[in-house]
Amino acid sequence: MSKNVLLLPGDGIGPEIVSEARKVLESVNAKFSLGLELSEAHLGGAAIDATGKPLPDETLAACKSADAILLGAVGGPKWDTNPDFAIRPEKGLLGIRSELELFGNLRPAILYPQLAHASTLKEEVVSGLDILIVRELTGGIYFGKPRGVREKEGGIREGYNTYVYDENEIRRIGRVAFEAARARNKKLCSVDKANVLEVTVLWREIMEELKAEYPDVELSHMYVDNAAMQLVRAPKQFDVIVTGNMFGDILSDAAAMLTGSIGMLPSASLDKNGKGMYEPCHGSAPDIAGQGKANPLATILSAAMMLRYSLDQGEAADAIEQAVSKVLDQGLRTPDILSAGMREVSTSEMGDAVVAAL
Amino acid sequence: MSKNVLLLPGDGIGPEIVSEARKVLESVNAKFSLGLELSEAHLGGAAIDATGKPLPDETLAACKSADAILLGAVGGPKWDTNPDFAIRPEKGLLGIRSELELFGNLRPAILYPQLAHASTLKEEVVSGLDILIVRELTGGIYFGKPRGVREKEGGIREGYNTYVYDENEIRRIGRVAFEAARARNKKLCSVDKANVLEVTVLWREIMEELKAEYPDVELSHMYVDNAAMQLVRAPKQFDVIVTGNMFGDILSDAAAMLTGSIGMLPSASLDKNGKGMYEPCHGSAPDIAGQGKANPLATILSAAMMLRYSLDQGEAADAIEQAVSKVLDQGLRTPDILSAGMREVSTSEMGDAVVAAL
Ligand SMILES: CC(C)[C@H](C(=O)O)[C@@H](O)C(=O)O
Ligand SMILES: CC(C)[C@H](C(=O)O)[C@@H](O)C(=O)O
Repeated sequence: MSKNVLLLPGDGIGPEIVSEARKVLESVNAKFSLGLELSEAHLGGAAIDATGKPLPDETLAACKSADAILLGAVGGPKWDTNPDFAIRPEKGLLGIRSELELFGNLRPAILYPQLAHASTLKEEVVSGLDILIVRELTGGIYFGKPRGVREKEGGIREGYNTYVYDENEIRRIGRVAFEAARARNKKLCSVDKANVLEVTVLWREIMEELKAEYPDVELSHMYVDNAAMQLVRAPKQFDVIVTGNMFGDILSDAAAMLTGSIGMLPSASLDKNGKGMYEPCHGSAPDIAGQGKANPLATILSAAMMLRYSLDQGEAADAIEQAVSKVLDQGLRTPDILSAGMREVSTSEMGDAVVAAL
Repeated sequence: MSKNVLLLPGDGIGPEIVSEARKVLESVNAKFSLGLELSEAHLGGAAIDATGKPLPDETLAACKSADAILLGAVGGPKWDTNPDFAIRPEKGLLGIRSELELFGNLRPAILYPQLAHASTLKEEVVSGLDILIVRELTGGIYFGKPRGVREKEGGIREGYNTYVYDENEIRRIGRVAFEAARARNKKLCSVDKANVLEVTVLWREIMEELKAEYPDVELSHMYVDNAAMQLVRAPKQFDVIVTGNMFGDILSDAAAMLTGSIGMLPSASLDKNGKGMYEPCHGSAPDIAGQGKANPLATILSAAMMLRYSLDQGEAADAIEQAVSKVLDQGLRTPDILSAGMREVSTSEMGDAVVAAL
């Protein structure tokens, strides 16, 4: 039985890193006879250039019919100044998330022992760090209506967005997070701003309600400002963090950076059946695009996550993760994670090394 | 000519730290013949306990007639479960900010050389850190309407808040930030989420517009997720950061924690005439309240900021700041900033030491 995997290279370093992940997928495909069929489509700026739209109909259709999706990254200064807000690369990404109802975003922040020195934090603060941020991805202020820019009395312009969640949306992401905590160290911290925002008062209430279904998981609550602080002060206090779309965007980037090697971190965005889109936590890095400097490992590890969560191929996923660990042990490093005594390699050399290690 | 200074001790450690700041203010008052008249009023949980309201009318009237206000901190678990959202300590604080139009919140994050080791970040990443976060404090999603929890079809509850700014609100905080940057290293970074939120597209537009008035200041823009990351990766790249109420809440706490000594950081909230409320960046820390463990230095330094910005007493402000530096040089430390070889002192011993050093 074959499985369709759709690759969305996107913009900036996207094409380079996805092409390395493709090599790796082709290699495990042959080795483990996975029957994967790989195809590609445009998304983001690349799609705007090709078709005038960030999420062309063909791409959306391909996403819907695929068994899993691997994305590089979208966005870049070239498209940032487009006055039509609907024609921006990010709208393509947000469109897939929303159309496919990929509400459950899993963003692990793990410190690789081989890269412990890469963190800007002191070793004792981050060594062994392994936290998971569960971010709601299809609701909240990202998608809330009404939104826009309007004129008030006297012609004064006013911009507005709506931060909104209903109890069902909160409950379903809550369950994803409680399940994840149950499979890990059984500690869940829900992050909100319930001392100021009503929408997060409801959020906190529903999380409390879910607690009864997961008596084995310890639930705590933290205000988002404090959470940003605690991530810097003592990140190892966390196991799983669950939060809304906007706070999750901010906190997951801060958490990723604690490891010092955001070029290593994969992520998954899942629907209610476990179908998903997988992508590196980092962005499209237009400043280094096309120079062979990008680290493909986050994308390769995203492919491993995809095999595990959406394609039920845990063995192939393990093999990729072990191969990545092996190339790190061999001392191979892209520029972003380079340190004294290690060997600097290019994007494609890194991809080749992972394939060789498989 | 006498000046009225209103002290608002608030909750948790608030009363302890404000009483040390009072000692220091009384001392400079005598020494420099400042003619300060100090009075006190209830705010937050203390006010709820005394009057049933977090911001009693007498307190608001006293705030309005004062020349400057010094606040400890508000909030605590005792009042967190009040089902009536209007009767929470935080509403008292938000009420003063809003009623007095204290829209300009200045939050410096400075690493004291004597406390360099206290940071969880590596010394080379934070040594010499001196950034200023300018947060808009009376608008955005904190105050936007409509807001609340409503029932949708089928009885499903939905929480909602509104993130809104008009161009005048953006312009006035933008000017505060450009002026601050001009007086410092002339670099201003405006933080938004203009790739997703329309309200921040307007924010970015107005900041760009203001650039023409401040040709000597270099303006850049950064998405909030990236800003959270960059604060961890390389905080010294920033001089002044300007952002809205919610993002400023999160980023200023993260920035403060970079120093490892949030017990040292003052803040100012100013109206358009420079009248202001001054408070430590840290919260009410109910867990250590009443134990003499709280660090009063952030409040004492807030009093110095107050003398400088709202009372035009730069000399007295300098004297306080020098006295604080002196007690640090003497090796005196409250528990939060204690390290090997230093002498642990209580809240009041620290206050006394500052007075003695004056
Ligand atoms: C590109 C952008 C729209 C996106 C987001 O804000 O969700 C990105 O920052 C992310 O975190 O995946
Ligand atoms: C207490 C709370 C309402 C307040 C805020 O969110 O503004 C605090 O966190 C702050 O930053 O001053």
